[in-house]
Amino acid sequence: MTLEIIPVSGIGAVASGEDVALILADALEALGPSRGDVLVVTHKIVSKAEGRVVMVEGDEEMFKKALVESEALSIVRRRGDLIIAETKHGFICANAGIDRSNAEPGTLILLPEDPDSSAHRIRTRLERRFGVDIPVIISDTFGRPWRRGLTDIAIGLSGLDAIIDLRGTRDWTGRDLEVTEIAVADELASAADLVMGKASGIPAALVRGYEGPRGAGRGSDLVRPANEDLFR
Amino acid sequence: MTLEIIPVSGIGAVASGEDVALILADALEALGPSRGDVLVVTHKIVSKAEGRVVMVEGDEEMFKKALVESEALSIVRRRGDLIIAETKHGFICANAGIDRSNAEPGTLILLPEDPDSSAHRIRTRLERRFGVDIPVIISDTFGRPWRRGLTDIAIGLSGLDAIIDLRGTRDWTGRDLEVTEIAVADELASAADLVMGKASGIPAALVRGYEGPRGAGRGSDLVRPANEDLFR
Repeated sequence: MTLEIIPVSGIGAVASGEDVALILADALEALGPSRGDVLVVTHKIVSKAEGRVVMVEGDEEMFKKALVESEALSIVRRRGDLIIAETKHGFICANAGIDRSNAEPGTLILLPEDPDSSAHRIRTRLERRFGVDIPVIISDTFGRPWRRGLTDIAIGLSGLDAIIDLRGTRDWTGRDLEVTEIAVADELASAADLVMGKASGIPAALVRGYEGPRGAGRGSDLVRPANEDLFR
Repeated sequence: MTLEIIPVSGIGAVASGEDVALILADALEALGPSRGDVLVVTHKIVSKAEGRVVMVEGDEEMFKKALVESEALSIVRRRGDLIIAETKHGFICANAGIDRSNAEPGTLILLPEDPDSSAHRIRTRLERRFGVDIPVIISDTFGRPWRRGLTDIAIGLSGLDAIIDLRGTRDWTGRDLEVTEIAVADELASAADLVMGKASGIPAALVRGYEGPRGAGRGSDLVRPANEDLFR
């Protein structure tokens, strides 16, 4: 299969209380959504629409630090101003996912309360509008241990499997595959980021031609349970 | 920009000593490589061509374990049969990158000695054949802390930047971006994996329409120095 990764343009700024599903559906009209499409949306516009925005009071750095501590379930590491925290969703990331890029001046953006539900609401709206089931991924930009640079990953999804389990399939020599679980939702989020960019104001991309399984995956499928994780 | 991710078919099995650059060039003929293309190649066929294959002697599990210890620069974590090791290239991954999927029975495949050089040789050959500069990424499938599932990442590259530094650019509110370094080579590798699959015998993909910077990136650009890493 060949995939196309298409930037979704014409979305612009999204304000608190706006209907982000409607905004996305309008922006997708021009692309004629069809079977095999997956929509990837950066969480920023979803968080804004859902009112997950906090006005900074007093000194921004101090305020942000206090907010990170209150949003975090636990602090995983700390060095200088850098806090790596576990969010209530189970994600481990810098500043518990709170950041200020693409936020209105004087505000900070939190992660959506429930990114899977956010994805589900958008998917439901798209199905009503276009009569076709378009899986939806909500993405964010995370750092990672050992490797420099950030990549986009999936924090919420609806309508597709987050992980494809290849256990039981065979490689081309006929041997059982050792490598078994592929985090396709994260790979889709990374692919989408290549056409979005942080500076360009494109907060969504359509992946066209995806033939992966359409299960009931959730963002939490991608979270490694603490007891399996050697790096906390 | 819209990206296309195109599987490169017709490659088949690659044996030790074969000219992998020639094999890839032949397979790309049908796609008419052009400016804006990036070729992503899984390291397996490169390692095989370069003779980075070891015959198993005696018990496979014990042999593999000894080989991992000899290939590793250091052991980062160990639990049961799982060894997370730092390779001589600086990569941190399971089993120092040694694995047996898609290996001939009775053999194990190592990482290429110098994946950047491997990428460079392929790129040089493609330029000679097609008269156009096609950046090349050598990919592998790595696990990661905190998140379940594996994703493909870049272990070697030639002809493009591994990381795009957005520092100094502004977001759409006009504010300086907080998120600055995007690991585009890893995102390209992940995007390519979506059309390759471990089981399908497609070991390369062409990313068409990539407009990112064509610097002199190296695989080591993506390795976080130990003194900056909170998770070793």
